[in-house]
Amino acid sequence: MEYLHGGDVYRNRVRHDFSVNINPLGMPPGCVEAAKRGVELCAQYPDWRGEELRGLLAQQEDVKAEQLILGNGAAELLYALIAYLRPKRALIPIPAFGEYEAAVTAFGGECVFWRMREETGFCLEEAFLNAVRADISLVLLCNPNNPTGVSVGKELLLRIAGRCEETGTWLCVDECFLPFVGREAELTLKHSLERFPHVIVLRAFTKIFGMPGLRLGYAMAADRSLLSGLRRCLQPWNTSVPAQMAGIQALRAQGFVGETVRLIDTEREFLSRELSLLPPGIVEKQYPSEANFLLFRGRKDLYQRLLETQILIRDCGNYRGLEESGSRGYFRIAVRIREENEALLDAMRRL
Amino acid sequence: MEYLHGGDVYRNRVRHDFSVNINPLGMPPGCVEAAKRGVELCAQYPDWRGEELRGLLAQQEDVKAEQLILGNGAAELLYALIAYLRPKRALIPIPAFGEYEAAVTAFGGECVFWRMREETGFCLEEAFLNAVRADISLVLLCNPNNPTGVSVGKELLLRIAGRCEETGTWLCVDECFLPFVGREAELTLKHSLERFPHVIVLRAFTKIFGMPGLRLGYAMAADRSLLSGLRRCLQPWNTSVPAQMAGIQALRAQGFVGETVRLIDTEREFLSRELSLLPPGIVEKQYPSEANFLLFRGRKDLYQRLLETQILIRDCGNYRGLEESGSRGYFRIAVRIREENEALLDAMRRL
Repeated sequence: MEYLHGGDVYRNRVRHDFSVNINPLGMPPGCVEAAKRGVELCAQYPDWRGEELRGLLAQQEDVKAEQLILGNGAAELLYALIAYLRPKRALIPIPAFGEYEAAVTAFGGECVFWRMREETGFCLEEAFLNAVRADISLVLLCNPNNPTGVSVGKELLLRIAGRCEETGTWLCVDECFLPFVGREAELTLKHSLERFPHVIVLRAFTKIFGMPGLRLGYAMAADRSLLSGLRRCLQPWNTSVPAQMAGIQALRAQGFVGETVRLIDTEREFLSRELSLLPPGIVEKQYPSEANFLLFRGRKDLYQRLLETQILIRDCGNYRGLEESGSRGYFRIAVRIREENEALLDAMRRL
Repeated sequence: MEYLHGGDVYRNRVRHDFSVNINPLGMPPGCVEAAKRGVELCAQYPDWRGEELRGLLAQQEDVKAEQLILGNGAAELLYALIAYLRPKRALIPIPAFGEYEAAVTAFGGECVFWRMREETGFCLEEAFLNAVRADISLVLLCNPNNPTGVSVGKELLLRIAGRCEETGTWLCVDECFLPFVGREAELTLKHSLERFPHVIVLRAFTKIFGMPGLRLGYAMAADRSLLSGLRRCLQPWNTSVPAQMAGIQALRAQGFVGETVRLIDTEREFLSRELSLLPPGIVEKQYPSEANFLLFRGRKDLYQRLLETQILIRDCGNYRGLEESGSRGYFRIAVRIREENEALLDAMRRL
C-alpha cells in the first residue's frame, strides 16, 4: 500500500513537522492527564454508547445526541460511510484529501473528479452544481478544503445541499478544519441537518484539539435510517477509553478554540507575508487559505531540501489535480506558532 | 441499537465484573506506563505501518510481518473482513459471539446457523463438515468458542480448513481466547496459513493482555490479495499511539502468558468444583470449558439477584442457540483471581 499523507515522523528525522495540519497549541489543558486517567481504566471496555462524551458534544454542537456517531478518528467514519453506502459513483472536487478516493475505490466505487482551477485559486464554482446528477450516489466535499484551505461559501453550499436532495445524492461534508476558521458558525452545515436529510457532516478532535495519536472523530446526520445503518457497520467499541476521556476534557476547555482561531489568523497572515518576501524562485505563488495551513507553488526540490534540515513539509505531488507544472511543485505547510514559523522561514531563506 | 454483550459497567453499579472475559491479572507490567508515554506522544499521528509492533508480533507469532494487519481491537478487523468479503451467506456454529451475525447482516449477508447440541456439551461435531458447501462464502469459527469455552480439536479443524479450500470458502478463525488455553501451540491455525490460503486468524490484545479499553487486535493471513484488499478497507491510522505502545510492552513481558494460563487452569477448576457443590437449584449443569470463562445453566433470576449484590455476570439469554429452557437460564462467568471467585461463590451461596 502507498502512503498518501504527511506526518511520517516514524521514517524521517524531523525537528519541525509542517506536513500535518494539527493545532500548534497541542491538546487543551488537562487532556493529557485525562487520557492518562483513561489508560488506568483500560481494564474495562469503553462505553459503547460514549454517553458522557456524546451528551457534551450534543450540547456544544447544538444537535441531538442521537444525531451523533463517534468514531476512531473521522477517517474511520469516512470508511464506514462508504462501506455502508457503497456509492457506485462518487463526485469529488479536486485537489482533495486522498482518503476520499482511496475509500471509494476500496469498496468498489468509481470516482468522478471535478477539477477546481488554479486560475481561480482553487475555488469551488457554481458550475459544480451541474455535476451533481442523479447518477452520482455521493458527493465528498471538504470545507475548508484540504490541501488548499479554500472555503465553500454558505450560499453555494446550501445550493449544493438542495441539489443533492433533488437528485437523491448523499452529501458528505468534511468539516474537520472548520473549527480553525473564524466564520465556522456561518459556514457549517450542522444546523441544517433536518432540512437536508442527505447531508452527513464529519468532524474530528484530531486537528482542532491536537490529538491525532488518540483517534477521535464524529459524524452528524439527521436521517434515522442512515444513522442506524452506519452504526451497524461499526463495532460497538470503536472509541477507546483514553480517547473518550480526553475528548470530554477537550470540550470542557473554555476559550481554547477561540484562542486557536486568533493564533492561526495572526500566524497565517505572518507566514503568508513572509513567504511572499522570500528571495525569488523559492515560492512562486500562494493560494488564499482560510484554514490552519497554506498551499503554494515553489521550487521543485523544496521538500527534499527542507527535510535535510529536519523540517517536514507536505509535497503535494501526489494530489490528483495538483500535477506539477514545469520546474514548480505544490507544497502545503501547516500554520504553527511563531517560533516554528520563523524556523521554517529561516530554513527557506537559507536555500 | 441493542447491546449484545456483558461489561456494561457504565450503566450498572458493579463491584466485581464476571461478565467480560478479560485476564484477571490485568495488563502485563509496564503496559499502563507505556500507554501513558504514548498519550504524551499523541500530538503525532500513530505509525500507520505499526512497524515496531508488527515486527515484534511477527517474531513472537512466527509469521511474516506482511501477513499481519493491526486493528482497533479484533472487532474492527471482523467488521472490515465482512465489509471487504461481503459474504452472501456465512456459516456460524451457535451459540456464538453475537458480533459475527451482527457484522454479516449489517453488510447485507445472510447467516446460516449450525446448532451445537447441548447433549454433547456444545461440541463442534464432524457433521459440521457437510454444512461447508460452495454456496457458503465464509465460515466464522471461534476457538475456543465463546460463550462455551469448548475448543475444536486440531484434527477436525484441519479438515474444516481443507474443506474450505475445496469449496472456495473463507474461514475466519477467532483465536482471541486461545492464548488462555494451555495447548495453544497445538490448536492454533497461525502456522498453517500458507497451507490454507482461505484462512484468516483473528487475535486480540484485549483479552489476554487485559486491555479492552485501549483497543488492539490483529489478523493473520497468507493470501496477498485478501491482505491488500482488507488493508484498503481500513483507514491508515486505525490503531492509536497508546495502544501500539502498550502492545509493544505487552509482547516484551516475559512469562506473563504462562503465568496467566496456570492461574486460569487452577481457578477454573476451583470455580467449577465449587459451583458443583452449591446448594441445589442454583447451578444445574456446567459445560466443559478450556478457556478463561465457564458456561452453566442455573436459576433464571441469577443475573438479577447477583446484580443486586453488585456482581455482574453474563446472562446468555440473548445468545442464539441458548434459548432458555423452563426455569433455567444460561449464564457465563469469567474466571478471575481467587478472592473475586470466592466473592462470587459467597454471593451465590447466600441466594
